Amino acid sequence: MENHIRYMEEALKEAKYAFDKGEVPIGAVVVCSNQIIARAHNLTETLNDPTAHAEMQAITAATSYLGGKYLNQCTLYVTLEPCCMCAGALFWSQLGGLVYGASDPKRGYYNLSEKLLHPKTKVITDVLSQKSEELINKFFKQKR
Amino acid sequence: MENHIRYMEEALKEAKYAFDKGEVPIGAVVVCSNQIIARAHNLTETLNDPTAHAEMQAITAATSYLGGKYLNQCTLYVTLEPCCMCAGALFWSQLGGLVYGASDPKRGYYNLSEKLLHPKTKVITDVLSQKSEELINKFFKQKR
Repeated sequence: MENHIRYMEEALKEAKYAFDKGEVPIGAVVVCSNQIIARAHNLTETLNDPTAHAEMQAITAATSYLGGKYLNQCTLYVTLEPCCMCAGALFWSQLGGLVYGASDPKRGYYNLSEKLLHPKTKVITDVLSQKSEELINKFFKQKR
Repeated sequence: MENHIRYMEEALKEAKYAFDKGEVPIGAVVVCSNQIIARAHNLTETLNDPTAHAEMQAITAATSYLGGKYLNQCTLYVTLEPCCMCAGALFWSQLGGLVYGASDPKRGYYNLSEKLLHPKTKVITDVLSQKSEELINKFFKQKR
Protein backbone atom coordinates (compact mmCIF):
# COMPACT_ATOMS: atom_id res chain seq x y z
CA MET A 1 0.00 0.00 0.00
CA GLU A 2 2.91 2.32 0.76
CA ASN A 3 4.06 2.13 -2.84
CA HIS A 4 0.52 2.72 -4.10
CA ILE A 5 0.37 5.95 -2.10
CA ARG A 6 3.78 7.05 -3.30
CA TYR A 7 2.90 6.53 -6.95
CA MET A 8 -0.54 8.07 -6.56
CA GLU A 9 1.16 11.16 -5.14
CA GLU A 10 3.12 11.35 -8.38
CA ALA A 11 -0.12 11.06 -10.36
CA LEU A 12 -1.56 13.87 -8.19
CA LYS A 13 1.45 16.03 -9.08
CA GLU A 14 0.49 15.52 -12.73
CA ALA A 15 -3.13 16.41 -11.93
CA LYS A 16 -1.88 19.69 -10.43
CA TYR A 17 0.02 20.50 -13.62
CA ALA A 18 -3.28 20.06 -15.47
CA PHE A 19 -5.01 22.34 -12.94
CA ASP A 20 -2.42 25.06 -13.50
CA LYS A 21 -3.12 24.91 -17.25
CA GLY A 22 -6.87 25.29 -16.80
CA GLU A 23 -7.49 21.62 -17.59
CA VAL A 24 -9.76 19.28 -15.62
CA PRO A 25 -7.12 18.11 -13.11
CA ILE A 26 -6.47 14.44 -13.74
CA GLY A 27 -3.02 12.87 -13.75
CA ALA A 28 -1.51 9.45 -14.34
CA VAL A 29 1.77 7.58 -14.10
CA VAL A 30 2.75 4.14 -15.38
CA VAL A 31 4.99 1.99 -13.22
CA CYS A 32 7.03 -0.97 -14.41
CA SER A 33 9.52 -2.86 -12.19
CA ASN A 34 9.19 -0.20 -9.48
CA GLN A 35 10.09 2.57 -11.89
CA ILE A 36 7.89 5.32 -13.32
CA ILE A 37 8.16 4.95 -17.09
CA ALA A 38 5.47 7.47 -18.12
CA ARG A 39 3.80 10.56 -16.69
CA ALA A 40 0.87 12.44 -18.17
CA HIS A 41 -1.99 14.80 -17.40
CA ASN A 42 -5.21 15.74 -19.10
CA LEU A 43 -4.61 18.07 -22.06
CA THR A 44 -7.97 18.05 -23.87
CA GLU A 45 -8.32 21.85 -23.88
CA THR A 46 -4.70 22.66 -24.65
CA LEU A 47 -4.62 20.23 -27.58
CA ASN A 48 -8.28 20.71 -28.63
CA ASP A 49 -8.42 16.93 -28.57
CA PRO A 50 -11.11 14.95 -26.75
CA THR A 51 -8.85 11.89 -26.76
CA ALA A 52 -6.03 13.60 -24.82
CA HIS A 53 -6.96 12.17 -21.42
CA ALA A 54 -4.13 11.53 -18.96
CA GLU A 55 -4.48 7.75 -19.33
CA MET A 56 -4.36 7.80 -23.14
CA GLN A 57 -1.18 9.81 -23.19
CA ALA A 58 0.33 7.65 -20.44
CA ILE A 59 -0.39 4.49 -22.48
CA THR A 60 1.17 6.00 -25.61
CA ALA A 61 4.23 7.19 -23.66
CA ALA A 62 4.67 3.87 -21.82
CA THR A 63 4.33 1.66 -24.91
CA SER A 64 6.71 3.97 -26.76
CA TYR A 65 9.23 3.63 -23.89
CA LEU A 66 8.89 -0.16 -23.81
CA GLY A 67 8.88 -0.56 -27.59
CA GLY A 68 5.84 -2.84 -27.49
CA LYS A 69 2.06 -2.58 -27.52
CA TYR A 70 1.43 -4.30 -24.19
CA LEU A 71 1.51 -3.11 -20.60
CA ASN A 72 0.86 -6.48 -18.95
CA GLN A 73 3.88 -5.99 -16.68
CA CYS A 74 2.82 -2.46 -15.72
CA THR A 75 0.52 -0.69 -13.28
CA LEU A 76 -1.25 2.54 -14.19
CA TYR A 77 -1.97 4.99 -11.38
CA VAL A 78 -4.62 7.57 -12.18
CA THR A 79 -6.27 10.11 -9.90
CA LEU A 80 -9.82 9.50 -11.21
CA GLU A 81 -11.65 6.35 -12.33
CA PRO A 82 -11.05 5.94 -16.09
CA CYS A 83 -13.85 6.68 -18.57
CA CYS A 84 -15.03 4.11 -21.13
CA MET A 85 -12.59 5.33 -23.79
CA CYS A 86 -9.63 4.98 -21.43
CA ALA A 87 -10.83 1.62 -20.08
CA GLY A 88 -11.13 0.43 -23.69
CA ALA A 89 -7.57 1.58 -24.37
CA LEU A 90 -6.32 -0.14 -21.20
CA PHE A 91 -8.04 -3.30 -22.44
CA TRP A 92 -6.02 -3.25 -25.66
CA SER A 93 -2.81 -2.68 -23.67
CA GLN A 94 -3.60 -5.76 -21.53
CA LEU A 95 -2.69 -3.66 -18.50
CA GLY A 96 -1.40 -5.63 -15.50
CA GLY A 97 -2.72 -3.39 -12.74
CA LEU A 98 -4.94 -0.34 -12.42
CA VAL A 99 -4.90 1.79 -9.29
CA TYR A 100 -7.23 4.75 -9.19
CA GLY A 101 -8.16 7.49 -6.75
CA ALA A 102 -11.67 8.93 -6.79
CA SER A 103 -14.63 7.13 -8.35
CA ASP A 104 -16.57 8.76 -11.18
CA PRO A 105 -20.15 7.46 -11.02
CA LYS A 106 -21.21 9.60 -14.00
CA ARG A 107 -18.51 8.93 -16.59
CA GLY A 108 -16.43 6.12 -15.08
CA TYR A 109 -16.25 2.78 -16.89
CA TYR A 110 -17.48 0.67 -13.99
CA ASN A 111 -21.09 1.81 -14.03
CA LEU A 112 -21.40 0.94 -17.71
CA SER A 113 -19.54 -2.37 -17.57
CA GLU A 114 -16.56 -3.75 -15.71
CA LYS A 115 -15.97 -5.84 -18.84
CA LEU A 116 -14.48 -2.76 -20.50
CA LEU A 117 -11.18 -3.63 -18.79
CA HIS A 118 -9.08 -6.66 -19.70
CA PRO A 119 -10.01 -9.67 -17.52
CA LYS A 120 -6.38 -9.95 -16.37
CA THR A 121 -6.15 -6.36 -15.09
CA LYS A 122 -6.07 -6.23 -11.28
CA VAL A 123 -7.91 -3.19 -9.94
CA ILE A 124 -7.37 -1.26 -6.70
CA THR A 125 -9.62 1.72 -5.98
CA ASP A 126 -9.87 4.61 -3.55
CA VAL A 127 -6.18 5.46 -3.14
CA LEU A 128 -5.82 9.10 -2.01
CA SER A 129 -9.30 9.63 -3.45
CA GLN A 130 -10.01 12.59 -1.18
CA LYS A 131 -7.02 14.56 -2.50
CA SER A 132 -8.17 13.90 -6.06
CA GLU A 133 -11.76 14.94 -5.29
CA GLU A 134 -10.62 18.12 -3.55
CA LEU A 135 -8.59 19.16 -6.56
CA ILE A 136 -11.43 18.43 -9.01
CA ASN A 137 -13.99 20.25 -6.81
CA LYS A 138 -11.66 23.25 -6.53
CA PHE A 139 -11.35 23.31 -10.33
CA PHE A 140 -15.09 23.28 -11.00
CA LYS A 141 -15.74 25.82 -8.21
CA GLN A 142 -13.34 28.24 -9.95
CA LYS A 143 -15.03 27.66 -13.32
CA ARG A 144 -18.50 28.61 -12.03
CA MET B 1 -26.69 6.78 -49.83
CA GLU B 2 -24.56 7.70 -52.85
CA ASN B 3 -22.42 9.98 -50.69
CA HIS B 4 -22.10 7.32 -48.00
CA ILE B 5 -20.69 4.92 -50.57
CA ARG B 6 -18.32 7.53 -51.96
CA TYR B 7 -16.91 8.38 -48.53
CA MET B 8 -16.74 4.74 -47.48
CA GLU B 9 -14.67 4.08 -50.59
CA GLU B 10 -12.24 6.71 -49.31
CA ALA B 11 -12.16 4.98 -45.92
CA LEU B 12 -11.47 1.68 -47.74
CA LYS B 13 -8.52 3.33 -49.52
CA GLU B 14 -7.13 4.12 -46.06
CA ALA B 15 -7.74 0.51 -44.97
CA LYS B 16 -5.67 -0.63 -47.95
CA TYR B 17 -2.78 1.64 -46.90
CA ALA B 18 -2.90 -0.11 -43.51
CA PHE B 19 -2.92 -3.51 -45.27
CA ASP B 20 0.19 -2.58 -47.26
CA LYS B 21 1.98 -1.72 -44.00
CA GLY B 22 1.12 -5.07 -42.40
CA GLU B 23 -1.49 -3.48 -40.15
CA VAL B 24 -5.01 -4.84 -39.53
CA PRO B 25 -6.69 -3.07 -42.48
CA ILE B 26 -9.10 -0.53 -41.04
CA GLY B 27 -9.52 2.98 -42.41
CA ALA B 28 -11.54 6.09 -41.59
CA VAL B 29 -12.37 9.52 -42.92
CA VAL B 30 -14.16 12.45 -41.26
CA VAL B 31 -16.54 14.51 -43.38
CA CYS B 32 -17.74 18.01 -42.54
CA SER B 33 -19.90 20.12 -44.93
CA ASN B 34 -19.36 17.59 -47.73
CA GLN B 35 -15.60 17.81 -47.39
CA ILE B 36 -13.13 15.23 -46.09
CA ILE B 37 -11.26 16.97 -43.26
CA ALA B 38 -9.34 13.96 -41.91
CA ARG B 39 -8.08 10.60 -43.14
CA ALA B 40 -6.47 7.87 -41.08
CA HIS B 41 -5.71 4.19 -40.91
CA ASN B 42 -4.79 1.76 -38.19
CA LEU B 43 -1.14 2.14 -37.12
CA THR B 44 -0.97 0.14 -33.89
CA GLU B 45 1.98 -2.01 -35.04
CA THR B 46 3.93 0.75 -36.76
CA LEU B 47 3.65 3.06 -33.74
CA ASN B 48 3.73 0.29 -31.09
CA ASP B 49 0.65 2.00 -29.69
CA PRO B 50 -2.59 0.17 -28.87
CA THR B 51 -4.48 3.48 -29.03
CA ALA B 52 -3.51 4.18 -32.66
CA HIS B 53 -6.77 2.92 -34.20
CA ALA B 54 -7.96 4.65 -37.38
CA GLU B 55 -10.85 6.34 -35.57
CA MET B 56 -8.67 7.76 -32.78
CA GLN B 57 -6.27 9.32 -35.23
CA ALA B 58 -9.16 10.61 -37.36
CA ILE B 59 -10.70 12.32 -34.30
CA THR B 60 -7.39 13.92 -33.35
CA ALA B 61 -6.80 15.10 -36.94
CA ALA B 62 -10.35 16.41 -37.40
CA THR B 63 -10.48 18.33 -34.10
CA SER B 64 -7.04 19.74 -34.84
CA TYR B 65 -8.29 20.90 -38.26
CA LEU B 66 -11.43 22.45 -36.79
CA GLY B 67 -9.65 23.99 -33.80
CA GLY B 68 -12.26 22.66 -31.39
CA LYS B 69 -12.94 19.53 -29.36
CA TYR B 70 -16.31 18.67 -30.90
CA LEU B 71 -17.34 16.87 -34.07
CA ASN B 72 -21.10 17.41 -33.74
CA GLN B 73 -21.24 18.75 -37.32
CA CYS B 74 -19.21 15.85 -38.70
CA THR B 75 -19.72 12.28 -39.88
CA LEU B 76 -17.07 9.62 -39.37
CA TYR B 77 -16.85 6.83 -41.95
CA VAL B 78 -15.00 3.75 -40.80
CA THR B 79 -14.63 0.39 -42.49
CA LEU B 80 -15.24 -1.68 -39.32
CA GLU B 81 -17.56 -1.18 -36.35
CA PRO B 82 -15.66 0.83 -33.71
CA CYS B 83 -14.37 -0.88 -30.56
CA CYS B 84 -15.29 0.35 -27.06
CA MET B 85 -12.24 2.64 -26.85
CA CYS B 86 -13.12 4.33 -30.14
CA ALA B 87 -16.83 4.55 -29.29
CA GLY B 88 -15.85 6.18 -25.99
CA ALA B 89 -13.69 8.69 -27.85
CA LEU B 90 -16.52 9.39 -30.33
CA PHE B 91 -18.76 10.01 -27.32
CA TRP B 92 -16.46 12.74 -26.04
CA SER B 93 -16.34 14.33 -29.52
CA GLN B 94 -20.17 14.44 -29.59
CA LEU B 95 -19.95 13.04 -33.12
CA GLY B 96 -22.87 13.96 -35.38
CA GLY B 97 -22.95 10.82 -37.52
CA LEU B 98 -21.23 7.45 -37.62
CA VAL B 99 -21.28 5.31 -40.75
CA TYR B 100 -19.53 1.98 -40.59
CA GLY B 101 -18.93 -0.96 -42.87
CA ALA B 102 -18.61 -4.44 -41.41
CA SER B 103 -19.87 -5.36 -37.96
CA ASP B 104 -17.47 -6.69 -35.33
CA PRO B 105 -19.46 -8.96 -33.02
CA LYS B 106 -16.34 -9.82 -30.96
CA ARG B 107 -14.80 -6.42 -30.25
CA GLY B 108 -17.38 -3.90 -31.53
CA TYR B 109 -18.98 -1.47 -29.10
CA TYR B 110 -22.57 -2.47 -29.84
CA ASN B 111 -22.52 -5.88 -28.20
CA LEU B 112 -21.24 -4.38 -24.95
CA SER B 113 -23.51 -1.34 -24.93
CA GLU B 114 -24.92 1.05 -27.49
CA LYS B 115 -24.70 3.65 -24.72
CA LEU B 116 -20.98 3.93 -25.39
CA LEU B 117 -21.81 6.37 -28.20
CA HIS B 118 -23.22 9.84 -27.60
CA PRO B 119 -27.04 9.81 -27.66
CA LYS B 120 -27.04 12.41 -30.43
CA THR B 121 -24.82 10.38 -32.81
CA LYS B 122 -26.82 9.02 -35.74
CA VAL B 123 -25.59 5.59 -36.82
CA ILE B 124 -25.72 3.93 -40.23
CA THR B 125 -24.29 0.42 -40.59
CA ASP B 126 -23.40 -2.06 -43.32
CA VAL B 127 -22.07 0.33 -45.98
CA LEU B 128 -19.71 -1.58 -48.30
CA SER B 129 -19.32 -4.10 -45.49
CA GLN B 130 -18.40 -6.92 -47.86
CA LYS B 131 -15.38 -5.03 -49.22
CA SER B 132 -14.20 -4.36 -45.68
CA GLU B 133 -14.66 -7.99 -44.64
CA GLU B 134 -12.83 -9.27 -47.71
CA LEU B 135 -9.83 -7.08 -46.94
CA ILE B 136 -9.74 -8.12 -43.27
CA ASN B 137 -10.14 -11.81 -44.14
CA LYS B 138 -7.34 -11.54 -46.73
CA PHE B 139 -5.12 -9.95 -44.07
CA PHE B 140 -5.66 -12.68 -41.48
CA LYS B 141 -5.32 -15.42 -44.10
CA GLN B 142 -1.87 -14.09 -45.01
CA LYS B 143 -0.87 -13.98 -41.34
CA ARG B 144 -1.64 -17.65 -40.72
